[in-house]
Amino acid sequence: MPSAHSSPPTRRQLLTRIGTLAGSAALYQAMTSLGHAQGTDFKGPPALGGAKKGTKVLVLGSGLSGMLSAYELRKAGYDVQILEFQSRSGGRNISLRGGDTVTELGGATQKVGFAPGNYINPGPWRIPYHHQGLLHYCREFGIQLEPFIELNHNSWLHSTGAFGGKAVRYREFASDFTGFTAELIAKAIDQHKLDDLVSEDERDHLRTAMKSWGGLAKDYTYKKGNTSSLRRGFARPQGGGIDGAPIPSDLFARDDVMKSGLWNWMAFHERLDMQTTMFQPVGGMDQIGKGFTRQVKDLITLNCKVTALHQDQKGVTVTYNDMANGGAVRQAQADYCVCTIPLSVLSQLDVQVSDAMKAAILAVPYASSVKMGMEFKRRFWEEDDQIYGGISFTDQQISQISYPSHGIFSKGPAVLLGGYMFGPAAYDFAGMTPKERLERALTQGTAIHPQYRKEFSNGVSFAWSRVPWTLGCCSMWTEEARKTHYKTLCSVDNRVVLAGEHASYIGCWQEGAILSALDAVTRLHKRALGAA
Amino acid sequence: MPSAHSSPPTRRQLLTRIGTLAGSAALYQAMTSLGHAQGTDFKGPPALGGAKKGTKVLVLGSGLSGMLSAYELRKAGYDVQILEFQSRSGGRNISLRGGDTVTELGGATQKVGFAPGNYINPGPWRIPYHHQGLLHYCREFGIQLEPFIELNHNSWLHSTGAFGGKAVRYREFASDFTGFTAELIAKAIDQHKLDDLVSEDERDHLRTAMKSWGGLAKDYTYKKGNTSSLRRGFARPQGGGIDGAPIPSDLFARDDVMKSGLWNWMAFHERLDMQTTMFQPVGGMDQIGKGFTRQVKDLITLNCKVTALHQDQKGVTVTYNDMANGGAVRQAQADYCVCTIPLSVLSQLDVQVSDAMKAAILAVPYASSVKMGMEFKRRFWEEDDQIYGGISFTDQQISQISYPSHGIFSKGPAVLLGGYMFGPAAYDFAGMTPKERLERALTQGTAIHPQYRKEFSNGVSFAWSRVPWTLGCCSMWTEEARKTHYKTLCSVDNRVVLAGEHASYIGCWQEGAILSALDAVTRLHKRALGAA
Repeated sequence: MPSAHSSPPTRRQLLTRIGTLAGSAALYQAMTSLGHAQGTDFKGPPALGGAKKGTKVLVLGSGLSGMLSAYELRKAGYDVQILEFQSRSGGRNISLRGGDTVTELGGATQKVGFAPGNYINPGPWRIPYHHQGLLHYCREFGIQLEPFIELNHNSWLHSTGAFGGKAVRYREFASDFTGFTAELIAKAIDQHKLDDLVSEDERDHLRTAMKSWGGLAKDYTYKKGNTSSLRRGFARPQGGGIDGAPIPSDLFARDDVMKSGLWNWMAFHERLDMQTTMFQPVGGMDQIGKGFTRQVKDLITLNCKVTALHQDQKGVTVTYNDMANGGAVRQAQADYCVCTIPLSVLSQLDVQVSDAMKAAILAVPYASSVKMGMEFKRRFWEEDDQIYGGISFTDQQISQISYPSHGIFSKGPAVLLGGYMFGPAAYDFAGMTPKERLERALTQGTAIHPQYRKEFSNGVSFAWSRVPWTLGCCSMWTEEARKTHYKTLCSVDNRVVLAGEHASYIGCWQEGAILSALDAVTRLHKRALGAA
Repeated sequence: MPSAHSSPPTRRQLLTRIGTLAGSAALYQAMTSLGHAQGTDFKGPPALGGAKKGTKVLVLGSGLSGMLSAYELRKAGYDVQILEFQSRSGGRNISLRGGDTVTELGGATQKVGFAPGNYINPGPWRIPYHHQGLLHYCREFGIQLEPFIELNHNSWLHSTGAFGGKAVRYREFASDFTGFTAELIAKAIDQHKLDDLVSEDERDHLRTAMKSWGGLAKDYTYKKGNTSSLRRGFARPQGGGIDGAPIPSDLFARDDVMKSGLWNWMAFHERLDMQTTMFQPVGGMDQIGKGFTRQVKDLITLNCKVTALHQDQKGVTVTYNDMANGGAVRQAQADYCVCTIPLSVLSQLDVQVSDAMKAAILAVPYASSVKMGMEFKRRFWEEDDQIYGGISFTDQQISQISYPSHGIFSKGPAVLLGGYMFGPAAYDFAGMTPKERLERALTQGTAIHPQYRKEFSNGVSFAWSRVPWTLGCCSMWTEEARKTHYKTLCSVDNRVVLAGEHASYIGCWQEGAILSALDAVTRLHKRALGAA
């Protein structure tokens, strides 16, 4: 760090100093009193520096955590080399485009048939505003971002068991759910049913709050009329000129609303992970992988299938098959190793770490998921349904249809996320042929968009459980495993440290990979300095 | 329209036929049964055609309604001329940029000091997804749109009387409001307080709904912990690596939440007008005015101050001062007139229409508003507060601070909407000098952003009540006036028809101007054909 004796400490420097001196409890107090604990736990890029000259670090894997580890370690003065299993860098950060092929464990190969410029992101596809670590490196590496539309009041909510199986607009449902809930509380207050639960003073506030928030009429009821239609939409919309008067829309029945289960999707949008504002890279999520690759391209050797990771008091030895040369067995030596191989794969390799670390590696189950990229001849969701970005939800296996946030209003074919299967649905879909998956997604999507089959052009599915280099989509820590194994998993084990979304509290998100890498290299650096 | 005997009618053609045959009630039934009444009442561009050769129409005003009237009437075969008061076209569709000057009634002149590329939209600044008329013409005229971020969970809510005058994050507040509301209902159900109001069966559903929607813990309470923090944000956020464990945040007190009034801003985002997805033109709202101007530029004469509009059985005569030539009095004749002059101005001119129409013109009050465009040296709201687009709200006069949805993550000076005053606050601000307004906005903004004064560069205010060509910002129909006067205002009065947002049910929005214009020219065309 540059000397700063001539200027007052920045807030970040201050926080770092407090943290160093007094531990995390003091840091937490300081952060909250400064009102600063807002994003993820990103505290700025690490200022490592001063590595012992000639110290070698081997990084296994060129996903975001591997490439970032290499980037920061090289900056600190280490000699870094990355071994990558695939013939590409970027890890789970992927965009599929026309001409790409997807080959699964089990043999099925799909050739992507999208029109030029179209893509689907089968892995990460959105970035929350609070993922400050990832956003920081996007800026640092010149990766351009654009808004990702998450919440769309005009998208569809669909449940096979609700509203006669007919999809309803988010706005219609949210308005009625909110209105009926508010009305119920207002009524209960008026009938003195809440006198035991809420003080008289607060009851007055609560009643006023319910009227405003719930869109209640002057008499504190939620009913058909302009007030409710100004939220849920009119039957005949507001117009211009002589016949411009709107006609209010009918409400749903309260019981239908409450038993529908569709409120789960209102809850969904309130999750920290799903809140506005969200972002996506311009041109596909893989622009991030490419941006990171630009920084460390010279360090990466592709097509290296690691089979063993050994270590002793002098260094680490990694054994791998050089797949670009007939699988020839080779070895790489280094002083230290940052291993970012997903635990689902790592648990099957010959890894020389402590028993506790071995147990930790085995303790983390991996989620499966399947995503479908489907290209349609035109943006019927925009042209017919006035849906611009956002997500429609269903209780069918496809679970959601996510409309592109880019290229809105453009003509020609466009790609949407036609299904995001997880849990049992993911296993079911992974067991099908790609053709069967498309057929199923078309059938289920038709329940929301009757135009689906007529407008469909082509599609691709990505079954993460059939991806040889991750065998699943991401880590799913149980609370129990977290308690027993997490700290061990993140510890420096002699000369080896693990990194990746699995070594974070932000599992399944790129931000987890970023923050894990920063923490891993910071502690590895300390370990190396200590050893020097 | 082209002959369509070889193909089945489109949905639009079908609706148009039903409408023609059976009137609007049948149309409404058909629309709702087709599930199509979703946007505003835009039914596609009118197919007029077949005007009697040589028929002249004079359009007064070159705002959106005037230019669109001219565009569609010329397409129909009319001879069209537009007279415009200002030295520019576009009406209230404005963007202010560095070097522009703003001169108010009363004499104050401001020179805008924004850096190149920066702008503020003092009039319309966002376009809801359901404003299909405007969106249609944006596409037709090649006007590029981008998302406008309306709802931002990370923006600030501020009330001088709540939470000790400290701004709170939208997500913190919304989470606690929702959680406490849900908990209250769950508790009331458990204590059998709602037995009279909700059936047993529905109570079960309702309880489950409250848990999901409200983010309640397993015991159906809303309390400090990971469940609530996964919505409202953690005190110490989720991190990566060995110390990645988050620390939950403290909740607000329920009574503080309920008496705060901040729930008004949750209600705000549920309004049809404010729902996601919203748009803005790339490069400033005036790109729409410019796009419309490109279509009818050759028809517009600028600097014409209309003083009288007369008509008889043969035609209309408009008297105006030619301001480009010393105010010379001139006259223009035509067969018909579309008058888009705001009623606030029109009511002061010599207009020869029926008494009922005169009464209608006088019956509509105009709203006042003041907007502030403020440039800051850097995007501190992004860099310090992680706010990317969206709006912070306050109960102070400035009412809101709206952050730019464009140029997110860029460096250098940026412009935000530093105040949007209406009602008494607008009159108060309009009575100040531009310098006093900035000073007041800085003081009030500092309550939300302590960095405000330090980072401020320059600003401009736009007081609509001091704009000579509108004398207010837009029409504010009362329910009573609407009942008595609206149909008259929209009627063709012999040879004159009015158009503009004031002749619509979407007052104060550009969409109102669009739909009003389409309706006015459609009826004027009928009138002209009938007369022929």
